[in-house]
Amino acid sequence: MTTQSLSLGLNTIWVVLTASMIFFMEGGFALLEAGFVRAKNNVSILMKVFVDLIFGVLMFYSIGFGIMFGVDHFGLFGGNGFFLKGDMAHLGLSIPTDVFWLFQAAFAVAAISIVSGAVAERTNFKAYILYTLCMTAVIYPLSGHWIWGSNGWLENLGMKDFAGSAAIHAMAGFAALAAARIVGARIGKFNEDGSVNPIAPSNLPLAAIGTFVLWFGWFGFNAGSTLNATSANIGMIAASTLLASASGGASAMLYTLLKTGKADPGHTMNGVLAGLVAITAGCAFVSLESSLLIGAFAGVLMIWATGWVERKKVDDPVGAVAVHGFTGAFGAIAVGLFATDGGLLTTGEWKLLGVQVLGTVVVCTWGYLSTTVALRLIEKLVPVRVTMEEELVGLDLSYHGMAAYGGIGTEFESPSLEEPQVQREAGVL
Amino acid sequence: MTTQSLSLGLNTIWVVLTASMIFFMEGGFALLEAGFVRAKNNVSILMKVFVDLIFGVLMFYSIGFGIMFGVDHFGLFGGNGFFLKGDMAHLGLSIPTDVFWLFQAAFAVAAISIVSGAVAERTNFKAYILYTLCMTAVIYPLSGHWIWGSNGWLENLGMKDFAGSAAIHAMAGFAALAAARIVGARIGKFNEDGSVNPIAPSNLPLAAIGTFVLWFGWFGFNAGSTLNATSANIGMIAASTLLASASGGASAMLYTLLKTGKADPGHTMNGVLAGLVAITAGCAFVSLESSLLIGAFAGVLMIWATGWVERKKVDDPVGAVAVHGFTGAFGAIAVGLFATDGGLLTTGEWKLLGVQVLGTVVVCTWGYLSTTVALRLIEKLVPVRVTMEEELVGLDLSYHGMAAYGGIGTEFESPSLEEPQVQREAGVL
Amino acid sequence: MTTQSLSLGLNTIWVVLTASMIFFMEGGFALLEAGFVRAKNNVSILMKVFVDLIFGVLMFYSIGFGIMFGVDHFGLFGGNGFFLKGDMAHLGLSIPTDVFWLFQAAFAVAAISIVSGAVAERTNFKAYILYTLCMTAVIYPLSGHWIWGSNGWLENLGMKDFAGSAAIHAMAGFAALAAARIVGARIGKFNEDGSVNPIAPSNLPLAAIGTFVLWFGWFGFNAGSTLNATSANIGMIAASTLLASASGGASAMLYTLLKTGKADPGHTMNGVLAGLVAITAGCAFVSLESSLLIGAFAGVLMIWATGWVERKKVDDPVGAVAVHGFTGAFGAIAVGLFATDGGLLTTGEWKLLGVQVLGTVVVCTWGYLSTTVALRLIEKLVPVRVTMEEELVGLDLSYHGMAAYGGIGTEFESPSLEEPQVQREAGVL
Repeated sequence: MTTQSLSLGLNTIWVVLTASMIFFMEGGFALLEAGFVRAKNNVSILMKVFVDLIFGVLMFYSIGFGIMFGVDHFGLFGGNGFFLKGDMAHLGLSIPTDVFWLFQAAFAVAAISIVSGAVAERTNFKAYILYTLCMTAVIYPLSGHWIWGSNGWLENLGMKDFAGSAAIHAMAGFAALAAARIVGARIGKFNEDGSVNPIAPSNLPLAAIGTFVLWFGWFGFNAGSTLNATSANIGMIAASTLLASASGGASAMLYTLLKTGKADPGHTMNGVLAGLVAITAGCAFVSLESSLLIGAFAGVLMIWATGWVERKKVDDPVGAVAVHGFTGAFGAIAVGLFATDGGLLTTGEWKLLGVQVLGTVVVCTWGYLSTTVALRLIEKLVPVRVTMEEELVGLDLSYHGMAAYGGIGTEFESPSLEEPQVQREAGVL
Repeated sequence: MTTQSLSLGLNTIWVVLTASMIFFMEGGFALLEAGFVRAKNNVSILMKVFVDLIFGVLMFYSIGFGIMFGVDHFGLFGGNGFFLKGDMAHLGLSIPTDVFWLFQAAFAVAAISIVSGAVAERTNFKAYILYTLCMTAVIYPLSGHWIWGSNGWLENLGMKDFAGSAAIHAMAGFAALAAARIVGARIGKFNEDGSVNPIAPSNLPLAAIGTFVLWFGWFGFNAGSTLNATSANIGMIAASTLLASASGGASAMLYTLLKTGKADPGHTMNGVLAGLVAITAGCAFVSLESSLLIGAFAGVLMIWATGWVERKKVDDPVGAVAVHGFTGAFGAIAVGLFATDGGLLTTGEWKLLGVQVLGTVVVCTWGYLSTTVALRLIEKLVPVRVTMEEELVGLDLSYHGMAAYGGIGTEFESPSLEEPQVQREAGVL
Repeated sequence: MTTQSLSLGLNTIWVVLTASMIFFMEGGFALLEAGFVRAKNNVSILMKVFVDLIFGVLMFYSIGFGIMFGVDHFGLFGGNGFFLKGDMAHLGLSIPTDVFWLFQAAFAVAAISIVSGAVAERTNFKAYILYTLCMTAVIYPLSGHWIWGSNGWLENLGMKDFAGSAAIHAMAGFAALAAARIVGARIGKFNEDGSVNPIAPSNLPLAAIGTFVLWFGWFGFNAGSTLNATSANIGMIAASTLLASASGGASAMLYTLLKTGKADPGHTMNGVLAGLVAITAGCAFVSLESSLLIGAFAGVLMIWATGWVERKKVDDPVGAVAVHGFTGAFGAIAVGLFATDGGLLTTGEWKLLGVQVLGTVVVCTWGYLSTTVALRLIEKLVPVRVTMEEELVGLDLSYHGMAAYGGIGTEFESPSLEEPQVQREAGVL
């Protein structure tokens, strides 16, 4: 057994295990979103996350990976590696290409999942499938190439985005903003006088499980991004990820506790996630103290951004725009402020900050515009918005023929799906 | 630190971590099954999965492991290694025996868990415990020895079943078919005129969590089966596992969407699982393109098989026979078609296909017959079927004295279990 | 690539991955506790676990780690390492300090989470935050230093507590006993004549998920405590952990089945956990056969202890005192009985047993007394008990302004939180 083959094996299991953890985050997204939306749309949102994973994997295999990581053309897109074919030597990987693909596929699926929550409860299922194809085949891979592809133009400018605060979260968060605007608000969310009707989460324990699953997966997300088990950074990355999540959760929880007298559960969960999103770019570049500051600011920024989105009359049932879009953008820019190598606050240099701001603005704009174009094109094929009747009945029965909670609700909301005798046996829940 | 001890450590943590992931799949089975059955039988099915894990581990430690992996006798069974004692040098392992046992115990527990779903909602708890003892002490280990034991007769013929499409899934799936037939259908499932009453799943979000947990664990299931972290196959195994699950989910989802206009959540989840089950035999032997085909066919096969089972008036509340039995059998046979080394479609050779078909038929038959015999013997000790009254009340109250959802249901279905004052405080749910 | 850097990388990923698994156990605690308490207090208990993780991490970073692992003073406390600063060479670690901190932070968070369940459903949220600060900054780190800190006085006496049956579980379990006494029983739990009203768990499937998550994480908890991937003990540790959990679950399940005719789900889950808690001290020191005995006894001890706690009129909604306190203490003492090196039953020597008993009594007493003092001090700042009205309404609405299950309950228990129109759309669940 040579040290070389040991090293290859070590890196391989590190990346396969962390990739598995990132795929498991899909379960986290599904539960978080199902918990936040109304019960009549629980199945619908779960099915959208299945679409993310199922079609996202197939698209990123056939098309997306090649665009993102193929041999670069003009700093703009890759041109080989489709269907995992072709020579990928230009990537200079320390792991086999299929292992690298596995990890990157998990990232691509995470990107589309961010959008799924923002359009919950009123998006046509077929339109959502088509949008998923666009996102994982082209939208995410293209801007991803600029930052992470070998020779992408933002990378060449010096942009630093370790595990994707910009490449994944901010881009997809602003895509989510565009998508939420285009599909419009849920019926009853906004009153004619401009006031807002809060819509209660259907199942906070589910949302909490989702948060814990995402938290677990994030250790894989950030530390796994080393792609190298002998990287000296792994401990620092994992520790800063944890500290930022704690300070994000703390700042959001305490903010609501001090302001309203009640610690808000939704904001606490999203505060933890905001801390995680924000540190994703910088976890390998900033000090532990900086990670605490980044997380804490992200927790509060998320609350402000949630309010801003609502004031703009955009209906985002799970807060994806605030959590991923705004704090993702902040996290990417924060690298320019706090990086131990080149950060403005740590070294007085402006260059990195400028690059980070530019890159972040570019990918947010790209996410927003490309999604707008994609959905406008999809609209020509199939409506992106469900009908009013489908929405009132709930998407679970309208699109999937089944209530999330067997029997319950069906007797009130639709013609019976079951024989009365079975209904009776099924009891109340 | 020598490379030898590093290699041993590397393989050890690889197998311990993946084994942990496979044990976690029990949580996935529990939730998937709880979500699919009615609320009044939720506790019951959870308890059956606890039985799988608790008694399965104890049996596989004391008896099963020795039968499966002990020194071979006649190609039929092993004869040492009981209680993890004795010399296991004949296995030629690259990891300590206790680590190997841990991984194999997780497989044994998975096998019995496959059966638990098919007999849900009407099986006597004590009978189920006794059956679990049989399955994990003898039934699974014996046929497992033929395929994976050192010198088993099917292995000697050249059968290839990397992580157990046949040895675990097909065998246990046909055991589930026998068990479901013997315990009979749930009251109200089939009408006298032969028509079928659909029984709505009680909690699809639970089932979805279960699916995501199983999906996560499957990376450990398949890639961990290398038992060797420096195996060059790990990336390919993980990637083909992922691709087959995606294509299985896609084919099942699109099939229902095209046929009924609604994407069916149960079939989508089971489609993902079908893809996973089917690629389990071949993940180390077939190309990525073949894994896509295998998964896609498995997704549709699962739907057909679900219909076939129902037409045969066998009541399988979670679809275990279709998902594990039929697609497991298909997956094992598909190795004979698609293996890059010896597959009919890839090399034109027939021999491997013949062996795979033979081996698959043998283990399916074994699972079916041994379960029939086991349950007929158990019936002499304790009834395998609950009484009609127990079934109508629900197994949760009948066998475990507790409703899954506190307070709810109890006031309608049984004499109150609680003081009225407490009842009132408990609120509605 | 040198073998030294490979070894460092191997140990690093081993500890980071197992630490992630331990942090994921917080999700397990949250769900187990949410499932056991009433629906009107589900959000409240989830929020307490978020507090455990969020504030626990921040405190253990700033203060606790230094007290626990800093350079020793008088065998009593550590004095550097606050904010992860300073020279930690005295620990002689095989991994970077930040990786070690990550793992130990997960342990500290587990300790406080044990208490959260025992005080569920009637503890003031702000008081709980303050108590969390005390526990993770001082209470746990101090006694932890005695056992695990470099040069702690119990360690110097020869106490063996591999992964913390005493240092974490027993200490926190007796802290939970003190806390449950001080906050008092839930309204309606005990009648004036001394009889007990059982309060039904709100959601056993959630509790079961929690158990499976804890089970999964425990492989990381125990095997990860080697902190060294090339430790020859890893397989034995993982196998004994599994065997003890199985025998603990079996003994508790069979005990209830034989005694009442019904296999009790709560006791089965807690029996599994009791086996896990009890083997945590000895998993690296006892034989597999001993681990079976330890687990089996722990399962029954837990049931007895649950009855004892109730007879003492202490209200512990999730059984934390029994599961962690009593079986943790037993597990630590069992090392003195069963250790292959120095155990009374295995070698006839008394010394180790004496040390284990002494150490266990000391940390249990410390947990009880320090918690009593801490809560008495906190009481001067903020009430530790909620008001009767808050309790009757439920802590979810009282402290967090939101019901766990959207819409449900609110119409009965509080002025409507939603516009009637939205209410109607939300359906029943």
